[in-house]
Amino acid sequence: MTAGSAQPNRGFKPFTLRLPIRFTHTDPAGIVFFPRFFEMIQASVEDWFTHGLGVTFSKFVADGFGTPTARTECDFLKPCFLGDFLDIAVTLERLGTKSMVLSFVGTVDGEVRLRARSVLVLFSLRERRTLPIEGDLRARLERYREHGMAAMPNKAGG
Amino acid sequence: MTAGSAQPNRGFKPFTLRLPIRFTHTDPAGIVFFPRFFEMIQASVEDWFTHGLGVTFSKFVADGFGTPTARTECDFLKPCFLGDFLDIAVTLERLGTKSMVLSFVGTVDGEVRLRARSVLVLFSLRERRTLPIEGDLRARLERYREHGMAAMPNKAGG
Amino acid sequence: MTAGSAQPNRGFKPFTLRLPIRFTHTDPAGIVFFPRFFEMIQASVEDWFTHGLGVTFSKFVADGFGTPTARTECDFLKPCFLGDFLDIAVTLERLGTKSMVLSFVGTVDGEVRLRARSVLVLFSLRERRTLPIEGDLRARLERYREHGMAAMPNKAGG
Amino acid sequence: MTAGSAQPNRGFKPFTLRLPIRFTHTDPAGIVFFPRFFEMIQASVEDWFTHGLGVTFSKFVADGFGTPTARTECDFLKPCFLGDFLDIAVTLERLGTKSMVLSFVGTVDGEVRLRARSVLVLFSLRERRTLPIEGDLRARLERYREHGMAAMPNKAGG
Repeated sequence: MTAGSAQPNRGFKPFTLRLPIRFTHTDPAGIVFFPRFFEMIQASVEDWFTHGLGVTFSKFVADGFGTPTARTECDFLKPCFLGDFLDIAVTLERLGTKSMVLSFVGTVDGEVRLRARSVLVLFSLRERRTLPIEGDLRARLERYREHGMAAMPNKAGG
Repeated sequence: MTAGSAQPNRGFKPFTLRLPIRFTHTDPAGIVFFPRFFEMIQASVEDWFTHGLGVTFSKFVADGFGTPTARTECDFLKPCFLGDFLDIAVTLERLGTKSMVLSFVGTVDGEVRLRARSVLVLFSLRERRTLPIEGDLRARLERYREHGMAAMPNKAGG
Repeated sequence: MTAGSAQPNRGFKPFTLRLPIRFTHTDPAGIVFFPRFFEMIQASVEDWFTHGLGVTFSKFVADGFGTPTARTECDFLKPCFLGDFLDIAVTLERLGTKSMVLSFVGTVDGEVRLRARSVLVLFSLRERRTLPIEGDLRARLERYREHGMAAMPNKAGG
Repeated sequence: MTAGSAQPNRGFKPFTLRLPIRFTHTDPAGIVFFPRFFEMIQASVEDWFTHGLGVTFSKFVADGFGTPTARTECDFLKPCFLGDFLDIAVTLERLGTKSMVLSFVGTVDGEVRLRARSVLVLFSLRERRTLPIEGDLRARLERYREHGMAAMPNKAGG
């Protein structure tokens, strides 16, 4: 990881999803069991599609598309506890022909708890193969990469 | 199940938690995999404690208490799909000495999708045993059973 | 529940799946979080199909069928702990035209920890509707209901 | 990742856990939802402790220790499907003073499906802090790093 590529434009306002840490997420040590964080990251991708890109995720899936994660990495910097509210901010680092790199910063009351980065691909559920990222979806992704939530009409934030 | 005991007072306004149906909940048939509903029911219990009883659930657990489910039953009447918002309404049917019976109705846009009923007990994490439900917690439960959200000061609903 | 209907023939040997209780199943109280038991019950249904009925569950799903749970009830009689091995025995209580009633007894070293009962339906993933239970599947279910694992050639048990 | 550090001794036989891919792991695309792989990786760590190091994991936790994951990365090279059996092989790449680096290779019928690498720390549940890895546990880890399953008396493999 080089910090440079992850640095968005000054003034970039990322889509952010707030999720409550629940009993179901915690383990015998009373902290979030790490695989649950990946479910939360997935949730942030879904809501980012809907509210950050303007592409309703459930319709996107119903239309036969998916965005499987081809690679992920995550640093769990501090534990999360029952009752915390985790804010996951989504940045689009890179947009390739057939994949994109997303980074995620998870904070509780502004304190960083985790940093993750994932490679997602576009997948056709019907054709059972990856697709190039083109057309309207690509245009929306480019706008988000540049402008974040400012690219969304009538949306103030996450 | 007899309908009578589940029938709260006329005008009773239950605590209701709205949860989005996410990719993580759905199975190869594209509908919610039934064990996920029990995680959602657990979430509704947690938020009911916090917002319906005024007992912050995370503090309650940090103080050494739990509310394990001793029995549950659920009718899955219609499937839930990705993109649905499930509203889970919580009713306190019965309050016993050491247990309580909660019923849950899950609706999407007002249409019933599931009905569940659970027996919860009060458990001391430190003493590793069930406890009688007494004192302030019992008083709050009794108020909720009678008045629902109307028992909560300055709260209009879930 | 009436004990009568759940009582299989004397000498009936049920399919039994042994599952390890893992960290992923346990909660801050160090015991299995109850929704996880329903994932285990689902696992026992899958392996019962494959090894108890001789219908490979993955092929059954790939062929476009599913067995969604329409109703379930479960008594959690004693907690399960990390390191336990839970044996889930599957009995077919009733076989209806379009549904079946399964009962499950979960034991650890012979001690009962949970008893559950579920209603499953047969579902066509392609036609998006329930189907009557007929033909070869019905014959296999009837044999299992009567004879349990004794109905399976060259199989001694679960 | 540099290949060198990950290359164990010639003849090193890793602990390997075989896990069935179940309905509970799969998503609307019919493939394993990626957070579930991290639950499987955690399962492989638990059984590696018990069978690869000779340290019963459940006793280790009951004695007040944990091994939280501080960082993980995973390449999901090919999807896994319902009915697959995933073999996860565990290699100890590095053993530091307070952390260790484990790598995981997941195969189905010998075909690589995923490669992961995690940093785990030793944690005291009672003192709520990380501990140096010392004494008997360190000796066992060093033996495993060098000899794999050959370090275990009377054990032929995973």
